[in-house]
Amino acid sequence: MSVERVAIIGLGLLGGSLGLAIAERLPKIATTGFDADPQVRQRATERGLVDRVCDTPAEAVASADLVILCVPVGAMEAAAREIASALPAAAIVSDVGSSKQSIARALGAALPDQAVIPAHPVAGTERSGPDAGFATLFSHRWCILTPPDGADATAVATLTGFWEALGAKVEIMDPAHHDVVLAVTSHIPHLIAYTIVGTASDLEDVTQGEVIKYSAGGFRDFTRIAASDPVMWRDVFLSNREAVLEVLGRFTEDLSALQRAIRNGDGEALFDLFTRTRAIRRAIIDEGQDDARPDFGRGDH
Amino acid sequence: MSVERVAIIGLGLLGGSLGLAIAERLPKIATTGFDADPQVRQRATERGLVDRVCDTPAEAVASADLVILCVPVGAMEAAAREIASALPAAAIVSDVGSSKQSIARALGAALPDQAVIPAHPVAGTERSGPDAGFATLFSHRWCILTPPDGADATAVATLTGFWEALGAKVEIMDPAHHDVVLAVTSHIPHLIAYTIVGTASDLEDVTQGEVIKYSAGGFRDFTRIAASDPVMWRDVFLSNREAVLEVLGRFTEDLSALQRAIRNGDGEALFDLFTRTRAIRRAIIDEGQDDARPDFGRGDH
Repeated sequence: MSVERVAIIGLGLLGGSLGLAIAERLPKIATTGFDADPQVRQRATERGLVDRVCDTPAEAVASADLVILCVPVGAMEAAAREIASALPAAAIVSDVGSSKQSIARALGAALPDQAVIPAHPVAGTERSGPDAGFATLFSHRWCILTPPDGADATAVATLTGFWEALGAKVEIMDPAHHDVVLAVTSHIPHLIAYTIVGTASDLEDVTQGEVIKYSAGGFRDFTRIAASDPVMWRDVFLSNREAVLEVLGRFTEDLSALQRAIRNGDGEALFDLFTRTRAIRRAIIDEGQDDARPDFGRGDH
Repeated sequence: MSVERVAIIGLGLLGGSLGLAIAERLPKIATTGFDADPQVRQRATERGLVDRVCDTPAEAVASADLVILCVPVGAMEAAAREIASALPAAAIVSDVGSSKQSIARALGAALPDQAVIPAHPVAGTERSGPDAGFATLFSHRWCILTPPDGADATAVATLTGFWEALGAKVEIMDPAHHDVVLAVTSHIPHLIAYTIVGTASDLEDVTQGEVIKYSAGGFRDFTRIAASDPVMWRDVFLSNREAVLEVLGRFTEDLSALQRAIRNGDGEALFDLFTRTRAIRRAIIDEGQDDARPDFGRGDH
């Protein structure tokens, strides 16, 4: 089965990047799009994020053979219900949400008769909105598909081919496992970054001006992901609560151990951990998942 | 007083960058250098990090009017004792260490009759060693001086002028306040990054390969600073214990509150924090302390 018409619901960073990536990599595919915010629809039209921006979600999906929901996790079910009656029977429905068990439940409930293949391209930046997208967002990034039990194999193969054509690498995963893996690699890092940025701005004896001036000591790395879309991230934590709390529990245990090591002056424990963590950085660079240049290539060196 | 001969003790990322920055910005200054590791001395000679690499610390400082100790915090006192008898009486001694109260004590004890002006250029990358340095490391970064009570004003002015000539912006600060500010903006971010990278690599139900593959979800940002020099950071935590534990206490309180908000499904609390933290990112970019491009400008977009 080949994809000829893709409908994108939600035209922010992910939806916009998807439209631009299709235009660049799969120019034969016709794209339609919808966003609940009229101003976003206007910017999407101006930037040409999709071939045709529609005024209703039903209009956007009416002749699609692949529909991708690019709205915050908490808005998935409502978005699915809005398109339910207009969807062609053969259309595959997918998404780009960061937690997969809750989305599988929501889409399954809203679209019981549709081929639903949830997906999560592990890519993004701290920007959001219709001006944030760009065509290469998914290049060399992983896209995780979490097909439900008994999912149509052709639909899975079609979606796999689609993401690969956009430059992504595809992996099939159990949704529960996805949610733990992403809690570690994405959700907890964001939660910690949001927390430390909040802590720093609330201290009485250090001014916000000082935090900003001396942020090159490491703090600024955290502020990037703590500038990500608040609605998206609120929904991620509410929808992936169990896995997030589980991994957070492990993190706080480890942090307590390190706190004890500092209190006791146990330099060996600190040195051991600090040595071990270097290897992971090297592996991430070797796998092409980050920039090898020091300081992420910031500045002119 | 003008600086004509600078001796750099320790030729890693900071010492090497200092030598290169002097050569580029203050070419009339003659530089000597020493490192305890013969292999580092050899690479320093090959890269021309200083005009003359010496075989002993005493030889390096023998005719210097400014000596800058660029060794890990825990090695400062020993390095100071090694140069004590060879130091010209008028030479200013400074350093680049990340915690200032302990260094002030160590250098004061080792060099009771010398003009000692501790300093901390807030700059660095995750690299270390004699190949890591580059001439622009200090450009547009802050350098904090923490002169002791009754410090010689001319020495402070000389050191200020020296760092400004290298492209840095200089601030004078009380050492105790410095240690709290840097605990927030540098030490705790590193501690948290080391911890989460350790936690991620110890989970049973998520493989290290998965952590690496899906690190673009946010985790990779943390691995950069968790790849920093283990000896340097061990010493920072041991030497700035009090301030680190204080700020860490605040962080863990805030993290517990967020954990409760997730457990209780309190989306409003999450949204409020996530909105507030965006402003700090903008301020850091406006102050020129980070790259404004999304994703730190990684990749080709």
